[in-house]
Order: sequence, then structure tokens, then C-alpha cells
Amino acid sequence: MSFKYERIDKNKAMLLVVDHQEGLFQISRDQNATVMKQNILAHSELAKIFQLPTILTTSAEQGPNGPLPVEVTSMHPQAPFIKRQGEVNAWDNPEFKAAVEAIAATGRTQIILGGITTDVCTAFLALSLREAGFSVFANSDASGTFDAKTASEANDRMRAAGVQVLSLFAISCELMRDWRNTPGTPEMLPFFDKYLPEYGFLARAHDASVRNGVQSGLGL
Amino acid sequence: MSFKYERIDKNKAMLLVVDHQEGLFQISRDQNATVMKQNILAHSELAKIFQLPTILTTSAEQGPNGPLPVEVTSMHPQAPFIKRQGEVNAWDNPEFKAAVEAIAATGRTQIILGGITTDVCTAFLALSLREAGFSVFANSDASGTFDAKTASEANDRMRAAGVQVLSLFAISCELMRDWRNTPGTPEMLPFFDKYLPEYGFLARAHDASVRNGVQSGLGL
Amino acid sequence: MSFKYERIDKNKAMLLVVDHQEGLFQISRDQNATVMKQNILAHSELAKIFQLPTILTTSAEQGPNGPLPVEVTSMHPQAPFIKRQGEVNAWDNPEFKAAVEAIAATGRTQIILGGITTDVCTAFLALSLREAGFSVFANSDASGTFDAKTASEANDRMRAAGVQVLSLFAISCELMRDWRNTPGTPEMLPFFDKYLPEYGFLARAHDASVRNGVQSGLGL
Amino acid sequence: MSFKYERIDKNKAMLLVVDHQEGLFQISRDQNATVMKQNILAHSELAKIFQLPTILTTSAEQGPNGPLPVEVTSMHPQAPFIKRQGEVNAWDNPEFKAAVEAIAATGRTQIILGGITTDVCTAFLALSLREAGFSVFANSDASGTFDAKTASEANDRMRAAGVQVLSLFAISCELMRDWRNTPGTPEMLPFFDKYLPEYGFLARAHDASVRNGVQSGLGL
Amino acid sequence: MSFKYERIDKNKAMLLVVDHQEGLFQISRDQNATVMKQNILAHSELAKIFQLPTILTTSAEQGPNGPLPVEVTSMHPQAPFIKRQGEVNAWDNPEFKAAVEAIAATGRTQIILGGITTDVCTAFLALSLREAGFSVFANSDASGTFDAKTASEANDRMRAAGVQVLSLFAISCELMRDWRNTPGTPEMLPFFDKYLPEYGFLARAHDASVRNGVQSGLGL
Amino acid sequence: MSFKYERIDKNKAMLLVVDHQEGLFQISRDQNATVMKQNILAHSELAKIFQLPTILTTSAEQGPNGPLPVEVTSMHPQAPFIKRQGEVNAWDNPEFKAAVEAIAATGRTQIILGGITTDVCTAFLALSLREAGFSVFANSDASGTFDAKTASEANDRMRAAGVQVLSLFAISCELMRDWRNTPGTPEMLPFFDKYLPEYGFLARAHDASVRNGVQSGLGL
Amino acid sequence: MSFKYERIDKNKAMLLVVDHQEGLFQISRDQNATVMKQNILAHSELAKIFQLPTILTTSAEQGPNGPLPVEVTSMHPQAPFIKRQGEVNAWDNPEFKAAVEAIAATGRTQIILGGITTDVCTAFLALSLREAGFSVFANSDASGTFDAKTASEANDRMRAAGVQVLSLFAISCELMRDWRNTPGTPEMLPFFDKYLPEYGFLARAHDASVRNGVQSGLGL
Amino acid sequence: MSFKYERIDKNKAMLLVVDHQEGLFQISRDQNATVMKQNILAHSELAKIFQLPTILTTSAEQGPNGPLPVEVTSMHPQAPFIKRQGEVNAWDNPEFKAAVEAIAATGRTQIILGGITTDVCTAFLALSLREAGFSVFANSDASGTFDAKTASEANDRMRAAGVQVLSLFAISCELMRDWRNTPGTPEMLPFFDKYLPEYGFLARAHDASVRNGVQSGLGL
Repeated sequence: MSFKYERIDKNKAMLLVVDHQEGLFQISRDQNATVMKQNILAHSELAKIFQLPTILTTSAEQGPNGPLPVEVTSMHPQAPFIKRQGEVNAWDNPEFKAAVEAIAATGRTQIILGGITTDVCTAFLALSLREAGFSVFANSDASGTFDAKTASEANDRMRAAGVQVLSLFAISCELMRDWRNTPGTPEMLPFFDKYLPEYGFLARAHDASVRNGVQSGLGL
Repeated sequence: MSFKYERIDKNKAMLLVVDHQEGLFQISRDQNATVMKQNILAHSELAKIFQLPTILTTSAEQGPNGPLPVEVTSMHPQAPFIKRQGEVNAWDNPEFKAAVEAIAATGRTQIILGGITTDVCTAFLALSLREAGFSVFANSDASGTFDAKTASEANDRMRAAGVQVLSLFAISCELMRDWRNTPGTPEMLPFFDKYLPEYGFLARAHDASVRNGVQSGLGL
Repeated sequence: MSFKYERIDKNKAMLLVVDHQEGLFQISRDQNATVMKQNILAHSELAKIFQLPTILTTSAEQGPNGPLPVEVTSMHPQAPFIKRQGEVNAWDNPEFKAAVEAIAATGRTQIILGGITTDVCTAFLALSLREAGFSVFANSDASGTFDAKTASEANDRMRAAGVQVLSLFAISCELMRDWRNTPGTPEMLPFFDKYLPEYGFLARAHDASVRNGVQSGLGL
Repeated sequence: MSFKYERIDKNKAMLLVVDHQEGLFQISRDQNATVMKQNILAHSELAKIFQLPTILTTSAEQGPNGPLPVEVTSMHPQAPFIKRQGEVNAWDNPEFKAAVEAIAATGRTQIILGGITTDVCTAFLALSLREAGFSVFANSDASGTFDAKTASEANDRMRAAGVQVLSLFAISCELMRDWRNTPGTPEMLPFFDKYLPEYGFLARAHDASVRNGVQSGLGL
Repeated sequence: MSFKYERIDKNKAMLLVVDHQEGLFQISRDQNATVMKQNILAHSELAKIFQLPTILTTSAEQGPNGPLPVEVTSMHPQAPFIKRQGEVNAWDNPEFKAAVEAIAATGRTQIILGGITTDVCTAFLALSLREAGFSVFANSDASGTFDAKTASEANDRMRAAGVQVLSLFAISCELMRDWRNTPGTPEMLPFFDKYLPEYGFLARAHDASVRNGVQSGLGL
Repeated sequence: MSFKYERIDKNKAMLLVVDHQEGLFQISRDQNATVMKQNILAHSELAKIFQLPTILTTSAEQGPNGPLPVEVTSMHPQAPFIKRQGEVNAWDNPEFKAAVEAIAATGRTQIILGGITTDVCTAFLALSLREAGFSVFANSDASGTFDAKTASEANDRMRAAGVQVLSLFAISCELMRDWRNTPGTPEMLPFFDKYLPEYGFLARAHDASVRNGVQSGLGL
Repeated sequence: MSFKYERIDKNKAMLLVVDHQEGLFQISRDQNATVMKQNILAHSELAKIFQLPTILTTSAEQGPNGPLPVEVTSMHPQAPFIKRQGEVNAWDNPEFKAAVEAIAATGRTQIILGGITTDVCTAFLALSLREAGFSVFANSDASGTFDAKTASEANDRMRAAGVQVLSLFAISCELMRDWRNTPGTPEMLPFFDKYLPEYGFLARAHDASVRNGVQSGLGL
Repeated sequence: MSFKYERIDKNKAMLLVVDHQEGLFQISRDQNATVMKQNILAHSELAKIFQLPTILTTSAEQGPNGPLPVEVTSMHPQAPFIKRQGEVNAWDNPEFKAAVEAIAATGRTQIILGGITTDVCTAFLALSLREAGFSVFANSDASGTFDAKTASEANDRMRAAGVQVLSLFAISCELMRDWRNTPGTPEMLPFFDKYLPEYGFLARAHDASVRNGVQSGLGL
């Protein structure tokens, strides 16, 4: 079996923020809420760091679903922002579809997306994008739904359509590729410190050790 | 890899209630029993809301498996109701097969089903339906079995046959597509309030806020 | 070690509904939301069935916490309903305290309570009630909070103060004591059918078996 | 996508008992030990009930792996029993291979197997059997290994090779097909009572209800 | 803090089988059903092996709760068997109370019990027995209820009343005390083989190794 | 049993930051790292909001344990900061002991603490403080250790010594008591928004609903 | 409530190795086997490092329970080693009791113990030791049993008798008290590196950073 | 569907150690740290036992990621060791690529790899190797990442590219094939004793039973 590894390319990618709304956030319970919030912000900030064209969309935001967090909208003041009045699947909204196609026309046919809920707004759109021929990369960490079983089954459905389901860390590293690139260490270490404190505190502790640490005495 | 996204279409779908019997309910332990009961009722009510032709079937209901809940039978008084005397796989029952084919003959070749147990009554029928050329959509939330591992493995088996395994919420939203359709908001919000209280209470609290809420003081 | 078993006595008990508000419901994630909703309604309905004097209270309900579900308020139209404007611990609210003491003055010094969140509104009040000399019975199923660890630790804190932490089923059965009492079978079986379908479907299937079941052939 | 549903056919199947040895049993920790023991016995008994040609095999049973349980060997006194001296994959043992091929030559090319460990003895053999052109049905319940993650990954590996991974209940019901067949109710109900007490106790309670139950009073 | 360790003494103990009914079995979901069934049988068999006076009781067994398993009743044909018509707490039934007191009058004031559900039939009785001055030993493995949280909270409630909550294995070993006693190895090894296959298969494999095993080659 | 409810009183409390070091953070795996980081910052910020006298301490911070996060030290530039060179239990360090006693001398004898690891640095100090007569409130959310079992057992050990083990939310609300106090809504809502997004997003969505939401159409 | 914190004192403690036998190891499934093995070795090595008088005991080691690991016996060649022929509770063995009392007579009345199974060999002995007036510290990590529920309940039973249930890390640190003591850093860091790699790799990475690390570029 | 089972062949395989660095170890939390450490060492030792050509690589080891454990480097003193200065995907490093291709040129085109993190360093390299035409076998046990969900999704991504995801035990046994081969029993039993104590203690106990065990008395 031959295989072609299509990596995310920062020059060929766009990023979609799909219904990361403050009301919908509350029905998203497959991840801890603190983690989910950080993942939503990280998803959006990735686009900013890598200067990826970005589209924001919401579903019926005057109603219970609520608005996007101000942290997200303020990161992308110039991005197309399509407020759907009824379409569950954003691809059914002509304005949204046109916005995606406009960016695609510039050669960006890889689409990174995350949204709430994983099984509906994210999956429906991802499947439509696959049908339309796009390469689709679902940010698993930045998508949320009722429970872990629903998330897993939605991811399986997307995988069956050829969607790549990746972690936030994997998307970030495929975009960066080399710590010596730009964006690279100076941009991405603070990003990881903010959103993946496992890595951030590793770096912090390392720096402190270099600065004025003393040997532990373990002697290995 | 090209991909065709076949969405559930309310004009092309039928719904099957497979052995949601009160005895079998008791061996279904992969979900909390309260949740399972609500999912069984929701599955049945979806057909009513979207006016999907529906078929009810049971396995040996005079014996331990027991009857369907009265809530289900009373929702579909006119539906074909095939009480199998021995066949485990409903497709082996000529009367059931004929009932499905009669509906299919009206152009409805998408089949939504849920049943107990996931690995036997649901999966066997789903696989036969796939072999017969139908598009099959398994309501994962409305299917139950001995434990979560068995459910997951049964879902994997169905996926390998091209069955789409979806959540109740995903099936509902693929049927509705747009909140402005009919059925749309007036029909589906009460449905979600009844069966997905995460969403229902979000809407309730929102409405109360609109009605006479006061700003919280957070000021974001 | 000698031990005195104080059972809940339907003639000595009152029931408190503590901040089961539609907004707070959304931060309560230690139980499945469907289960939590049913438990909230069951808690309230217990008081109705056993004619327990009941007090409703909410915290800042014009704000994000939201109102009580209409199902709850409509079950207790005559009950004292104290809408706290700021006190987290209802015992700090003189009106609430007076309402409890008024009922206690009729000889009802056993208090059944459930609320959101378990660690704050429920636990604070329970501890104050214990200090005031009441026997306190916390409905563990009808209390919710951020996660299971927080719930467990809050329950441990209450136990250390002599609070009895019980399941909905245990509270119901201590109130009923004997299926031949009133309330007994005619009142409680439908209650269990509604809120504990494990038991309800057992009874339903049994009745069907009695009605027109045939021996399974197992022959034991 | 077209799909052919190959069901297990009691006239086309054989069953393999792969290294269900008393020593290896002890390293099998992905299921509760009581459940695992019952599943091992049930796997073996299925062959007896459906008169499936059966092959027993063990790996180095004089050493730590130990012998098969006497319950298993005594159920199949005439079955070929290949005691491998070193081959991990039974297919590498010419005697075992010949035994399988001899049965296959009678038209039985569907192979049901279960073994310890799932990732090694079961999976290696299953993959070899797939390569040799057999239809392979892995009894997930009757296979055990170090932990659940290892079991799941081994099952994924087998699925990728076209192995059907099924529950004990699904295998049983595909073999039986209709409760009115032989084997059917008289043979299979006692089997389920012994190995799947969820179902057995359902039947027992039903029979008691029919025999001399009285209506519960629920009145649905 | 001084502490008195009261061990179970086979000459001072009686054993109660509380509502291990085939209907109630089905609402008991905190343990795997196969494990639960084995634990119920083991609980009963312990009394037989150690010749402990035993009392059987059921709650409304003509109704949905169903009868005791025949394996249990046939083990104790001479035991007092109190079929309660309505009392949830067996201690409220005068006949049951008299049966316990009659045995206690022979010097047996340690009570081992297990039942369904843990939070109601088991806990209520255990608390009453504690109040009546008995030493109470709850067989945690032979008690079942809706879910693990409910079981844990019921056990906490019993512990607070001085009930000892023990595993089946701990009860067995406190009764036996020394493998050289009677009952000892000849009686208890087969018991453990039947109900705790972790231990049984350890013994089986050991015996095979002694019989005709060969060194593994590990050489430690 | 009589009970005295000692609430945390913002005028009687001090707060300890115990070894929340960037190296030790990495061995703290009982909670998600993102959650743990937020809880560490929240613990420290509580002291700032309620103007609680605060003591910082670290263990061998030049070595692998590493320094405190700069976010913590910069919040408390004037706080006593005791860098222990070897003592595991901070109470064994005379300087630390003196710092606590100095604050206690001002009438603050309630001690809120959180640290890494729960079972060592936190528990040892908490037990010593209990022995010294202090009221001790352990912030369960701001303490971390190797795994959940170790955390739970350490909390049990502390409880047995009379330590109150509370959630971050419970500590916050016991300090605030009434949303109308100062600190109250204006200080605590942003705090909850930052550290408990379940609550923060509830408030955000509510405010948006009040501002320009429209009724959902649910109509309850 | 006044509280006395009795810390483990290396000059007052002895350590017991209770039935850490290679056969029994196999029925111990509440922890991963690799972790359990390391904890058994660590338990034994603690005694060596702190020169704690040690007693080894086994139960019927010629039978299925098997011998102690050679790593354990070779660490304590001079320790009393009592091979019980039948007593489940080691305290019932006069030789064992005498060995404990002989050490206690030198002023060592604190007993650290770990064993298999937690609910039987460990708990029975711990309770007897408590009754005999000893301070007992159970090494929770070095004890194993059938499953996590059984371990937790056995620990609860021991706690109710005043046994301190601690982690390996907590016992180690109470013994060491100060990294500058002997045993201290030079002895304990290699111990933690061997048995708690979370800590060991933290120290290793720190040392590498000090040796020739370069600043990460995070710049905090 | 035809299937070709490509087994790992010790004469056709090479092994890669990918970023098993002491810093990265600390962000790897999907497995217990003790287990992860043992798996890392086992991965490396497999290559030594089977004399598989081995390549070591690290990512930015002067920074927070840290060096490889000395146990690993000292096992492979002659192996190519590529210290990447910035490339996340080792395949992007020409020196690493050349090292792999040099070994492949000797006929070894099967690649066994394990690394940290599973979703980035391991998966990226595995996908590139698949694209380059290699057969890839991922050692699931020797790979680690932030949490189990991320590991599972990374494994799914690799499987979709034709990577075989195997357990350490499966890789070991596919390499060995027959206990009578070299390496076989004398080499692999000590390996399993060290890294899979479930199996090691089984062999130890067996050997003790053979040596001087006595029948248990079970008599089966």
C-alpha cells in the first residue's frame, strides 16, 4: 500500500473557528472546562502566529448559543465573520462558502478547523469540505461535545471521510516544522507555555537550572 | 481520495425501532439506565417529528425480552409492527423485510436504526441492510448492550461495513439542517429540552436572562 | 461502640430545594446532565408525594445562576420561596432561617436537602444546619458540582459533621418504609418508574410477563 | 460502496482454542478474572453445542504457561490437541496447520478463535489465517492480555486484516440465527444463563413472574 | 487511641442473605453481572462451608423483585426463610427479627450480611443491627446497587455506624484463620477456585508445575 | 453529636503557598497540567483579593524542584518567602515557623494551604499545623501529586487529623460569603471567569443574552 | 479537637515484608504489575537504606503462593524470616509475634508494613498490631489485592483502626525528614530515581541542564 | 479481500529510538511514569538482543528536552546518534535520513520505532517513513504523550497510513517467533522478567513450584 503524507503547510492552510460560542461551551463536557477554554484560545492564536487566513462563524448567536469569546474576536478583527441565522452546517451558508473559496483561490486548500459540537458543527462542515475536495485537519483538542463517546464517534466518522484528526500540539508542530524557522522558538515557546504547561514548565525549570541551578547530587 | 458526503435527508429516510424491549432494556448496561430510556424515547420521537415512515419490531416479546415501552408504541400506532417469533436478525423475517422494502419503494433508502443489543439485533440488521444496498445510520445513543467495550466493538464492525454511527444530536441536526426549516426551532427546541437537557437548560436560562435578567457585573 | 440509627421519618422531615437553578445546572458536571435533571425533579417530587413541608431557595436568580425549573416551582406553589440576593449560605439569610425554624417548630427537625453546587450551596447550608442541631440528610443524587472529585470531597466534609449522605433511592425508601404504607406501592412505583428506570422497567416487564407471558424454556 | 455480509454459518465454521492456559490466564488482566474464566469456558462450550469441529492448542505447557483447564479438555476429548513446543504463532506449527486444513477440506473455512494473549497468540494466528484465505471471527470476550489498551490495539490490528472482532453473544447468535432452530432455545438459554447472567436472570425472573407472579401495581 | 480488633469467629457468627432476588439482580449494576452472580453464590456457600446459621429473606418476591436463585435456596433448605410482604428494612419484620434473635441467643452475635441493594436493603438492616448491638460485617462483594457511587456512599454510611465493610476474600479468611484448620485447605481451595479464579488458577498452575513441570530456563 | 462549623473568615485567615515549584509541577500528575497551573495561580490570587497575609516557601529550589512561577512571586512581592534548604516539612524550618506564628499573633489562626506534593509537603505541614492548634483548610484543587490514589489517601490522612479539605470554589465562597460584600461580585466574578470557566462563560453568555439576546422560542 | 502528629521516626521504626510472594503477586491486580514489582522492591530497600530492623514473612510458600523475590531476600539476609505454615494473620504465628516484640523491646514501636493481599494479610496483621498498641504505617503502594475497590475498602478498614495509610513517597520523606540528613540526598535521590522516575528524570534533566544546557529562549 | 501478513523479521528490521529524552519524559503522561521508563529501556534493549541496527536521535537536547537516558546510550555506543538542532520530524534531517537509508540498503526495510511524543515526533516520522516506502511498526508501549486520548488519536492517524501499531510484547514475539530460536528462551525470558513482570513472576513461581513445591491440595 502506497501512502502520501500530506503535511500541514503554513503557506497552504487556512483556519476556521466554528461555533466556539459561550453558550455552546456549556454543553461541551467531554473535556475539563478549563482545558477546553484554553484549547479554544490556542486554536485561534495559532492562526495569528502563523498568519493563517481565518474565518469566524457562529450559529444563531443572538439565541442561547451566545457569542464568541471576546478573546477570539479581538484576535481576528479583520477576519470574515459569518453569523449564520439557521444553517447548522456552515457549508450550507453561501457567504461562508464564498469566504472559504476566496481564500482557497489563493492556493490555500488545507483547512484546519475546530468547533462545538464535534459531532454536529465540526463534523458536518468537515465532511462537506472533504466532499468539496479540501484537505481537512480537525483540531481534536479544540472541539467539544456532550461526552467523550460522542467525540470519539464523531472523530471516527470524520476519519472515514479522510479527515486528519490531530492534537493541538501536532497541528502546531506540523505548522512550525523546525524550531529554527519563523515562527519558531521565539513565537512557539511562549505559545506552548501558555497552552501546554507541561511543556512550558519544563522550559521554565530548565532555564532556571541553567541560570543558577546546582547539581542535584544524583550523579548520573 | 475523493469522498461523497451522504447526509440524512428527511425525505429519503425511514426509521427502525429494533427490540427496544423492556426486558432487554435490563441487560443493556453500557449507558446509565435513565439516559438509555430517554434515548429510546427520543429515537422514536424523531420519527414522529420528521414524519419518517417507521417500523417497529420485537423479538419473542411474550418471553423474557418483554414488550416495547408503551410510550414508543403509542407514538406510532399506524406503523408496521413485526413481532418476530424467533429470528434474531430482523432481516431474516420476511414480513419485516417486506415492510422495509415497501417504504424503500417510495424512494426512502436511508435507514436510521437503534436497538438492543448493539452487537446482535442492531448490528446484524445493519449489516444485512448494508448488503441489501441501503444507506444505514446507526443511532449510537439509542443502542445498548452489556458493556461499553461490546458497544464499541459492535460499532467498529458496523463502520467496517459502511454504516454511519452517529449520536442522537447529529442525526437530529442532519434531519433538521436549518433552524428555520420545518421542523425547525419550534419543534426541535422542545425535543432537545426533553432529551438533551444540556441544551434545553441553556435555552431556558437564556430566555430567563432575556426576559428579566440583569447584567452580572463581569463586564466582558 | 453504641450506635443510634436515626431514620428519616416522614412526619418529622422537611425538604429543601437549594439553588437547583437553570444556570447553575450548567456548571454541574459530575453527573450526566439527563440524570441530573431527573434527580432534581425527583428530589422535588419526593416532598410532594410525602407531603413534606418544603422550602425553595435561589441565589441571585436574576443573574447568571438563573431561575428554578418551572417543573419544580409548579410542584410547590405554596412553599416558602426565598430568593437570596447575595448570601451564598442560605442560613445567613434571615428569611430562609426563619422559614426553616417555623417548620421545625412543628416538630420537623430532620432536613433533607439537595442543591448546586454540592461543595458550596449544599455543603455550607448542611454544615450550618448541623451546627443548629438539625438532623441532616443530603440527597447525593440531587446535588451537583464541577466534577466527581469535588462532589466526593464535599460529601466527606459533610459526613465529618454528621450529615447523612444518601442516594435518592435510600431517601425514598426510608420515607416509605413499607410498600403497604401510604404513600406506598401506588405512589412510589410510578415515581421509581419515572426516575429510576432500572426499577420501573423491571416492574413493567414483570407485569407483562404476568399478563400474558409464556415460560422461556429455561426451566429452572 | 458495496458490502457482502458474511455471517458465521454453523455448517461452515470450526473453532480454535488458543493457549487458554492456566499460567497465561494469570497475565491476562484486561478483564476481571471471573469474567475471563467464564468466557474461556463459554468459548469452548459453544463448539460443543453447535458441534463445531474444534482444535485445541497450547504453547510450551510444561513450562510456566501451564495446561488448559480441565473443563476445556474434558469438553473436547476427541479434538486434535496440538502442544506446541516453541512456535508462538500456531500457524508455524505444521501439525496445527494440517489439522486446520483437514477441517477446512470438509468445507469449513470460517474460523472462530479466542486465546491468550490477544496481541500475540490470538492476533498472530488470526493474521496468518487471513493470509491463508480463511474468514476469521475473533471472540473478543474469550481473549485476554496485559491490559485494555493492548487488547484494543490488537483488535485494531486484526480488523485491518479483515478479521471480524465479535462479542461472545454475537458469535452465539450468529451461530443460532433463530431461537426455533436446533440448537435454539433449549440449548442456548441454559448457555446464556451460565455465561451471561444478565440474560439468564432476566429469563429466570420472567419465568417466576409467569408462574406465580402478581401484578406490581404500576399499571402501565 | 486504643483499638480492639474484633475478628469474625466462625463459632460466633451467623449469615444473612438479604434480597439476592433475580429481579433485583437486574438493577444491580455497580459490578459486572457475572461477578455479581458468583459473589451471591459464594456468600451463600460460605455459610454452608462454615456451618453458619443462616437466614434467608426476600422482599415482595411475587412481584418484580422475583425469587432467590435456586442455587441459594437449595443450599439452605432448613434455614429460616422470611418472605417480607412490605417491609423494606428486614428488621421491621417481627418474624425476621425473631429469627435473628433466636440465633443470637445461642451466642452468635456477629452478623455477616450481603444484599441488594447496598444502599437500601443492606444498609438499612445493617444500621438497625448495629443499633441492636450486633457486630456487623458487610460483604461488599455480595452487595449490589445502581452504580459504584451509590455503593461507595452506602458503605460510608455503614462504616460511620461501626459496620465492618469487607471483601469476600477477607470474610473467608477471617473465618478460616489457618489453612490447617477445618474448614481449611480441603474446603477452601475449591471454594476459591470456584469464586476467585485468580487464586484458583494460581493453584491449578502450581499443581501442574509440581506434577510434571520443567524449569522455565529463567534461572532465578 | 454536636457540631461546630468553623467557617473560613477573611479576617482570621492566612494563606500558604507550599512548594508550587516549576520542577515539582512536573511530577504532579493527578490533575491535568493546564488545570493544575490555573489552580496554583488561583490559590495565590485568592490571597491577593482577600488581602490575606501570605507566606511563600520552596524546597531546595536551586535543585531539580525549581523556582516558584513568576506569576506567583510577582503577586506577593512583600510576603515572607522562606527558601528551605533541606527540611521536607516546612514546620521544621524555624524561619517558616516564626513567620506563621507572627501572623497568627495578629489573630489569624486559620490557615489555607496548597502545595506539591499533596502527600508530602502539603500533608506533613498540615499535620504539624493541626498539632500546633491551627485550623487548617487544604485547597484540594491547588495540591498535586503522582496520581489520584495518592492524592485521595493523603486527603484522608489530613481529614483524620481534622484538616478541612475543600475545593477552590468552596474556599473562595467561604471567604466571600455574600456577593454584596467587598470582595464580592466585582472582584470575584472576574476571578471565577479566569479560573473556573464553567462559571465565567455562564456569566458571559448571560450578559450577552441580557444585552441583545432574543427569546429562543422554547417558550418555557 | 486536639491532634498529635506521630511522625515515622527512623530510630523508632521497624519494617515488615508481608507475603510479597511471587505467586500471590499474580493475584494482585489493583496496580499495574510493573509498578507493583517496583513498589515491592522499594519497600524492602527503604529498610536497608534507613537500617530499619526488618522481618520477612511468607504464607505457605511451598504451595501456590510461592517464594519471596530473590531481590527481597538478598537485601535482608540477616532478617528474621518466618515462613508461616498455615496462619493467615502473621500475628497468630508465635515466632513472628516474638520477632516483632523483640524488636519493639529495643524501643521501636512504629511498624511500617506492606503486603499481599491488602485486605487479608496486610489488613489482618495491621489490625492485630494496632490492638497490640503499635503505631502502624501501611505502605499503600507496596500492597496489592484483587482490584482497586478491594484495596480502597481494606484501607478504610485499617484507617478506622488508627492505621496511617501512606504512599511510598510519604513514608520515605517522613523517614528522611531533611535532605541534609544521613540518609539524605546521596542515598535517597538514587532511590527515587530507581522507584519514582517522575522524580528521578526531573533530577537527571536538571543536572543535564546545569551541566551544559542553554537557555530555551522562553525568557521568563 | 486478500491480505498479506508482513511479520517483523529480525533479519530485515532496524530500530529507531526517537526523542526518548529525559525532559520530554516529563510531559509524557498517558502511561504511568514507571511503566513508561521500563518501556523505553525495553525498546532499546530489544535492538540489542536481536542485534538490530539502531539509530538514536534527539531533538534540541541542550534545551528543555534534555538528553537520552544513559541506560539507552550506553546500550548502543556504536549506533548512529543524530542530534537534531531544530527539525521536529527526524526525516527532515538529512543526516538522519541518510543513516536510515544506509541501513535500508543492507536489506532492512522494516522499521520499529518508539518515541516521545506519540503525536509529533513518532507520528511525523512514521508517516514520512511510510511515504518513503518502509514497513513501519510503532511500539505503542514505548511511545508517550500528554494523555491517552492524544495517544489513541495519533495511533489512529498512523494506522490510516498503514503503520502497524503493536505492543512491546507483540514486537518481541514477532522477532523471536519460536522459543527454541536464538534469541529464544535464554535471552527472552530474562527480558520479559525485567520488563513484563506479569510474565516474569509467572516463570519464577513456576520454577519454584517445580523445584520444591508441594501439591496445593486442590486436586484438579
